[in-house]
Amino acid sequence: MHKIVLIRHGESTWNLENRFTGWTDVDLTPTGVEQARQAGRLLKAEGYAFDLACTSVLKRAIRTLHLTLDEMDRLWLPSQKHWRLNERHYGALQGLNKAETAKKYGEAQVLTWRRSYDTPPPALTPDDPRCERSDPRYAHLQPSDVPLTECLKDTVARVLPYWNAVLAPEIRAGRRLVVVAHGNSIRALVKYLDGISDADIVGLNIPNGIPLVYELDDALRPLRHYYLGDAQAAEQAAAAVARQGRG
Amino acid sequence: MHKIVLIRHGESTWNLENRFTGWTDVDLTPTGVEQARQAGRLLKAEGYAFDLACTSVLKRAIRTLHLTLDEMDRLWLPSQKHWRLNERHYGALQGLNKAETAKKYGEAQVLTWRRSYDTPPPALTPDDPRCERSDPRYAHLQPSDVPLTECLKDTVARVLPYWNAVLAPEIRAGRRLVVVAHGNSIRALVKYLDGISDADIVGLNIPNGIPLVYELDDALRPLRHYYLGDAQAAEQAAAAVARQGRG
Repeated sequence: MHKIVLIRHGESTWNLENRFTGWTDVDLTPTGVEQARQAGRLLKAEGYAFDLACTSVLKRAIRTLHLTLDEMDRLWLPSQKHWRLNERHYGALQGLNKAETAKKYGEAQVLTWRRSYDTPPPALTPDDPRCERSDPRYAHLQPSDVPLTECLKDTVARVLPYWNAVLAPEIRAGRRLVVVAHGNSIRALVKYLDGISDADIVGLNIPNGIPLVYELDDALRPLRHYYLGDAQAAEQAAAAVARQGRG
Repeated sequence: MHKIVLIRHGESTWNLENRFTGWTDVDLTPTGVEQARQAGRLLKAEGYAFDLACTSVLKRAIRTLHLTLDEMDRLWLPSQKHWRLNERHYGALQGLNKAETAKKYGEAQVLTWRRSYDTPPPALTPDDPRCERSDPRYAHLQPSDVPLTECLKDTVARVLPYWNAVLAPEIRAGRRLVVVAHGNSIRALVKYLDGISDADIVGLNIPNGIPLVYELDDALRPLRHYYLGDAQAAEQAAAAVARQGRG
């Protein structure tokens, strides 16, 4: 039996300001820092040990990983950062307030962008100062690998090669992994693992900073999954995520 | 022309308590945290950019790296941690106060252990609770790779394979490296690069948290080296290191 632990980063400044974030590299709030530390304390209390940590190239995830490992006294753990674990790219909505965007485009349109599986928000233009193609962290990529917008379907297509190339082989080799990523890159993994339909995945919310454990068989099929710690708190946190951007 | 930047971690709790540290995994002091951040601010102000960061598996170095990168807004930088960059192992002296040890064994003996190139301090026994052979971060190593004590000559012999296997090939491939390590693992690199004699290397001190830049030719021979920032401050910091444990 294998285990993989998935953690969504702690609350970010733009979670708090209710703005579309995507690949924008915003930091954690003090609450987010505390959520990350609490994740580490939970994992330590439950006796979790890891061989490898994987995260995105966005600081809210990287810092969450560092704080989690610090609480476990495991700062030395081998870790790697990969752009394929980044959040869903939110296109031209990045930086906009969710409620204001709902007023401007109508709540129905924003809900479609947020909740449709295959309708991406309007794309950034490559010359938009928000476009990440000139960011040095992506300099080694083909420009076409750096999205201008993504629907969740695009995010799934971008995350799965990382599952196939890195995560799955590491798990098969017996390595115990912790993955600190984002709401939608974790959704992408969960959709794949649990075979969730395109319609159902958009209703699934991942709370900040609560370790989500998947137990997998030798074929890496899920046996069961559960949140560590207070299950009710996890439910409430997920419900809070679902409420963002309404009204 | 190539450049490599070497940084000794910021002040640690046992630097402050004047205790022999070695492979003991002590943390930074608030001063050490500030030194690490200052290193990042200096590198950023001077326009340094890196492709890869290398550090040890000890938290005072790892945390220094994280703080340095944070100030540079480069938390996403690929980084690796390796035990070969660890501090010199201080054997059975680890944890002992330097001044008390001088009283107990005589200042001459302690100076020999501290300043001789090839006389190691008394070894830990493998059943000593301080012995790192049962530490999970070294579980992938042969027990004989985990030292029970080291003289500086041993540290050089342990660090150089990492230079040859990782640092030198990366530099030759055009990668810009920052290495955050320890007084003696940096001494080991400096001794090799500058061809410093066994007698002279023991008198060379590396200050905490001040970036040391080596410019290398295509054969990786040093053209020149210098500390970033206030040269006088670097001199004074190195002199302070030299005074530790006297009296």
